[in-house]
Amino acid sequence: MIDRLIDKIIDRQNPSIVGLDPRIEMVPRFMREEYFYEYGKTPKAVGEMFFAFNKEIIDNVYDIVPAVKPQIAMYEKYGFEGVRCYIKTNEYARSKGLIVIGDIKRGDITSTAEAYAEGHIGEVKIEDQCYNIYSQDAITLSPYLGSDSIEPYIKHCKEYDKGLFILVKTSNPNSGEIQDLETNEGKLYEKVGKLVDKWGKTLIGKHGYSQIGAVVGATYPKQAENLRKIMPNTYFLVPGYGAQGAKAEDLKGCFNKDGLGAIINSSRGIIAAYLKESNRKKFSEKDFALAAGEAAIYMKDDLQRNLF
Amino acid sequence: MIDRLIDKIIDRQNPSIVGLDPRIEMVPRFMREEYFYEYGKTPKAVGEMFFAFNKEIIDNVYDIVPAVKPQIAMYEKYGFEGVRCYIKTNEYARSKGLIVIGDIKRGDITSTAEAYAEGHIGEVKIEDQCYNIYSQDAITLSPYLGSDSIEPYIKHCKEYDKGLFILVKTSNPNSGEIQDLETNEGKLYEKVGKLVDKWGKTLIGKHGYSQIGAVVGATYPKQAENLRKIMPNTYFLVPGYGAQGAKAEDLKGCFNKDGLGAIINSSRGIIAAYLKESNRKKFSEKDFALAAGEAAIYMKDDLQRNLF
Repeated sequence: MIDRLIDKIIDRQNPSIVGLDPRIEMVPRFMREEYFYEYGKTPKAVGEMFFAFNKEIIDNVYDIVPAVKPQIAMYEKYGFEGVRCYIKTNEYARSKGLIVIGDIKRGDITSTAEAYAEGHIGEVKIEDQCYNIYSQDAITLSPYLGSDSIEPYIKHCKEYDKGLFILVKTSNPNSGEIQDLETNEGKLYEKVGKLVDKWGKTLIGKHGYSQIGAVVGATYPKQAENLRKIMPNTYFLVPGYGAQGAKAEDLKGCFNKDGLGAIINSSRGIIAAYLKESNRKKFSEKDFALAAGEAAIYMKDDLQRNLF
Repeated sequence: MIDRLIDKIIDRQNPSIVGLDPRIEMVPRFMREEYFYEYGKTPKAVGEMFFAFNKEIIDNVYDIVPAVKPQIAMYEKYGFEGVRCYIKTNEYARSKGLIVIGDIKRGDITSTAEAYAEGHIGEVKIEDQCYNIYSQDAITLSPYLGSDSIEPYIKHCKEYDKGLFILVKTSNPNSGEIQDLETNEGKLYEKVGKLVDKWGKTLIGKHGYSQIGAVVGATYPKQAENLRKIMPNTYFLVPGYGAQGAKAEDLKGCFNKDGLGAIINSSRGIIAAYLKESNRKKFSEKDFALAAGEAAIYMKDDLQRNLF
């Protein structure tokens, strides 16, 4: 998976990815009205509307970015209709050649991890039938439970050519409360970084990077620089650019000298670009996906200008 | 929520709860055949079959135990049909008067936590309509991201009388790898325990316990005893009894002198009791739920005998 991702990054000359995290208030009014009229003000309407919204966004960014990262919470919130939309979105994105990174942040004991791994990145067996349920190329995970909670996923990564991005240093304001604690093995996030590096050692691909990646927030550039050294072969999935406040300059430490090593996520800044004050005159509601395409190109250029 | 839970524990004279974690191989053959015949070997069949299985279990334990704890991974694995079954199971359990603790172990940045909180323990607004999507009284959470990742849930606990159980010391063999690290504020799990104690201080009910609880594995009795002192007002949700190896005697340190302070989970040991070698002669497949009821009574008696 990591080789496929890097091939696409090189092909697109673009290390940025689009976070498909729709909210009702981001969906243009004409679409909302259409789906509420058809299905009532129901989770079903939201699921159908989010899929239509995502589909247009995907159609306008699939040849600009290498990957998308849907945040499952935005779908799961609406129950099974939301999850159905999440899966349809993943399937559609993959049909357009995009790599799909499911932002699910699961983390549980071994037997439970096995169930999550089968559903999200492996195969689910029902008697003699096999199903690929969630249609994802990689997922995010939480490390709090330790190695045996991660191993089932690693096994599935090997078997099905999938990837993981494990939370190391997150982008939120309070991430230091636990992650920056001084331990007898360095700061906690450094210790977790070393573990991720170790977990990934047997899964290194042709570009020198492992299928086991890390989530490293753009909002903490110094820690990112530090982690870059601790985890030389680990790809970073970097949230925090744009709406969360980090700028392109803050991202330098996430990359290696080969110009690789990190993918930068932007969600709201791309998918809700048409709502930006500066875009209101330029794009009508009907053109929301054109605005997303333009924002994706702007982000690509911003990164190219400031990073390489 | 914590008052309702404790009232039920006192009423039932039983601090044990049933983990509703079905697997295909636990479902009696005649049921499997029935649903595969009707729906094919599909996720839909599994969802329908799991609900029928859970319903019979619930019918046989609802007057014995105060609560059930469905593990969402076992359902989520099967996609939206699984999630639909998860929700139906929760709704049915609550209709029988059981407290439902959703074992979801989510953990994400604030804006995402808000979406999870609305869906799982709050209300989801779709224009002027409000939905209670997952029908849960409490959920489990992961603390790795720190206070601002927990706050949205605490707000919802206050507003909707719900509860949380936050991972502090988990039951799996490698839980110490991260959780037992020595930090400058004690072992990591102790630090997390102090945070949970702090988060719960403003939500203490009539029995002296907070709506914000902790997950503390039965497989680490010494750490549990230590945490009992650090978190005097925190209710412990304790996995690890039975199939994971902990015995009733190991649980003593989880309780306070008032005989309260912990609920003990058993999943496989109850819901798949009919498959135990010693039960095979006594219970036919058709009586799987009767075996679950008997196992729930056995567990109650085992705890009573050894704990109080």
